[in-house]
Amino acid sequence: MKEFLKTISYIEWENLLDNLEFKNDYIISSVFTARDHISFENIFAKENIPGFSRSTVDGYAVKSEDVKGASASIPSVLKIIGEIKMGEISEIKLNSGEAAKISTGGAIPEGADGVVMIENCEESDEWVEIYSSVGKGENIILFDEDYGKGEIIVNKGEILNNNSIQALIASGIYSLKIYKKLKIGIISTGDEIIDYKTKTREKGQIRDTNSFILSRLLEEMNETVVFLGIIKDDYNELYNIIEKNLNKFDLFLISGGSSMGTRDITYDVLSGFSKILFHGMRVSPGKPVIFGEGENKIFVGLPGHPLSSFISAYTIVLPLVLKMEGGNNYKITPSGYLPVDRNLSKKVGRESFIPSIKYKKDNGYFVRPLLGESGLISLIKESTGFIRISENKEGVYEGEEVEYYEF
Amino acid sequence: MKEFLKTISYIEWENLLDNLEFKNDYIISSVFTARDHISFENIFAKENIPGFSRSTVDGYAVKSEDVKGASASIPSVLKIIGEIKMGEISEIKLNSGEAAKISTGGAIPEGADGVVMIENCEESDEWVEIYSSVGKGENIILFDEDYGKGEIIVNKGEILNNNSIQALIASGIYSLKIYKKLKIGIISTGDEIIDYKTKTREKGQIRDTNSFILSRLLEEMNETVVFLGIIKDDYNELYNIIEKNLNKFDLFLISGGSSMGTRDITYDVLSGFSKILFHGMRVSPGKPVIFGEGENKIFVGLPGHPLSSFISAYTIVLPLVLKMEGGNNYKITPSGYLPVDRNLSKKVGRESFIPSIKYKKDNGYFVRPLLGESGLISLIKESTGFIRISENKEGVYEGEEVEYYEF
Repeated sequence: MKEFLKTISYIEWENLLDNLEFKNDYIISSVFTARDHISFENIFAKENIPGFSRSTVDGYAVKSEDVKGASASIPSVLKIIGEIKMGEISEIKLNSGEAAKISTGGAIPEGADGVVMIENCEESDEWVEIYSSVGKGENIILFDEDYGKGEIIVNKGEILNNNSIQALIASGIYSLKIYKKLKIGIISTGDEIIDYKTKTREKGQIRDTNSFILSRLLEEMNETVVFLGIIKDDYNELYNIIEKNLNKFDLFLISGGSSMGTRDITYDVLSGFSKILFHGMRVSPGKPVIFGEGENKIFVGLPGHPLSSFISAYTIVLPLVLKMEGGNNYKITPSGYLPVDRNLSKKVGRESFIPSIKYKKDNGYFVRPLLGESGLISLIKESTGFIRISENKEGVYEGEEVEYYEF
Repeated sequence: MKEFLKTISYIEWENLLDNLEFKNDYIISSVFTARDHISFENIFAKENIPGFSRSTVDGYAVKSEDVKGASASIPSVLKIIGEIKMGEISEIKLNSGEAAKISTGGAIPEGADGVVMIENCEESDEWVEIYSSVGKGENIILFDEDYGKGEIIVNKGEILNNNSIQALIASGIYSLKIYKKLKIGIISTGDEIIDYKTKTREKGQIRDTNSFILSRLLEEMNETVVFLGIIKDDYNELYNIIEKNLNKFDLFLISGGSSMGTRDITYDVLSGFSKILFHGMRVSPGKPVIFGEGENKIFVGLPGHPLSSFISAYTIVLPLVLKMEGGNNYKITPSGYLPVDRNLSKKVGRESFIPSIKYKKDNGYFVRPLLGESGLISLIKESTGFIRISENKEGVYEGEEVEYYEF
């Protein structure tokens, strides 16, 4: 078997990502289809939001000085000069000694600087008795309190989610520049691998579920994913399928077969299309990763074991795709720091990503690492996420807090 | 203003959900379109997975008794009787003193009960020197180690995700019974509310982003959502739109306007179509929730403030939808327990859901509660989730751990 030419640690992988250059264009998109896309530029509020000062309660808009010291025993009595209609700017202009009825969300009339809650008022025909004082600005949202005109709502490199889109449309922004999504080609290799849609399977064969789950994860990020098929562990087959599709994709993911010599084939083929930056990552599971950089194009050979493949999708593929697309926050970040519920030893010299179950006990969460072969898919199904133990550690003790990453 | 007839606590709401009966049908679906749907029944493995015993390493399949005590100084020497081809069941049958070359994933031949890693072997023509012993079953995944035939893969009431679908297709299961998704009608009310697509907005008007975000959250669960439009705060308008659409939907969500008297209108209209189970929930934000049960049909009046509406979507609507659809785990569960970074006081008598930012400091996460009016959408955009403080507490102290729910 060919020696791994250059292995890197997971930290080195993250450094490599920091320095990776990929030229990605932008497109102009409707905000309504921009979810999961990455903003190409800072987006500023085009108008003040809410745009007018609003009441946050039902009650009476007043001049705060008119109700100074008002109480149940010594109420202020103000003249009702009208009611603010919802959805309109009233003509009402408040003078000293006057009040205007207002609903939650109603526009504060000119001259008013506070709203007394309806519970603290007693109205009778033209007059309202006010039983409490209000401070200047009390029960009011100012016209620019949400976003001032020109304020940044979304940053360049930020992933757009429902909440950022809500803020954009509230501000009247309906189109924006986003980075183009990648075109990704996936190839599965392995003499024993058969299409996952195959109903009847012979003994010795394994349904290829790696390409399924990899596609799903990428499709959820709105990437364009094309499955190029399953090929045998054969240099020419792999070479030909990549050459034929070379100009159609930004990123090729080659899900490895597991037979002896497979990784040599992937290495040899990828060398023909790219400069191999590393060959092997000091992680567990998932060591046999190959990474090649071509002309504004990336090639990644991924491990074939289902668990290794799945963990690599989270720790390698998704961060890579986010970085290639122009994202700011492409590195994996733990969902939390949780105590492990047992002692766990590991090999020094490999960053470990161990599928685990998060569960509640007493008043907190714990994680139970699932130990087993990386060829098992049930480990993926049963786990809620993975824990990470750094390269240099020999293991962790029961009760020690570890980084937990939820799927 | 009409009194709230019957208010309930959040815990009582969860009890109500436990007892809520909604008759929901199933459909037969392809597994490939079943994500986010709820399984109608227990699903059992139809075959053993992986289906044959496999090697987890590259090396030599042997009888473990043949290499007992083998070491670098005293190797066992075995006769190579062949190589296992990937994807096939070999004719090879191992007798004592024999070994067969095998790749990771290869089918263990008859007679073998262990695999020696290639690193511990030295081969020469027909013979292989073995430098280490292996235990019975070492480096082997058994034929039913992932799932035994008849073992449960997915439980009735479980939400199907990518990982459960992977396990199903690995087991050759391509169709299943799932609960039907709901048909949900959304109505926005409020004299000041305008369509969120309106480019130019008059002063006093607010773009309706509540229906946008509610639709998005439900569409992400694959629900069928129809936006029935924005209506004025008017009894007849609300009555008519519901009556016209009554038989088309399982669930009506009425996003409230905020003007005085609106909640009376919603209450009066919903009373005509359903039995009102409660009118007001002792939560903050989001008190003005109205809940009516009709003939296998649910009506919910939701608060109009954007933050209240958004929090209600997470704490009321999503759990309700999951329960109506037949899900087992419909209650909200915290993502973690995290210390708050400041003292926080609250009203006793209301369960508080406070938008918060999770952030890292030193070696752990903290949450910073965002305080502000529930009319602000920037609070939604800036927060990463919400914290929950129970009804009876007066507040929390800096450093106290609270339930944190990530969006």
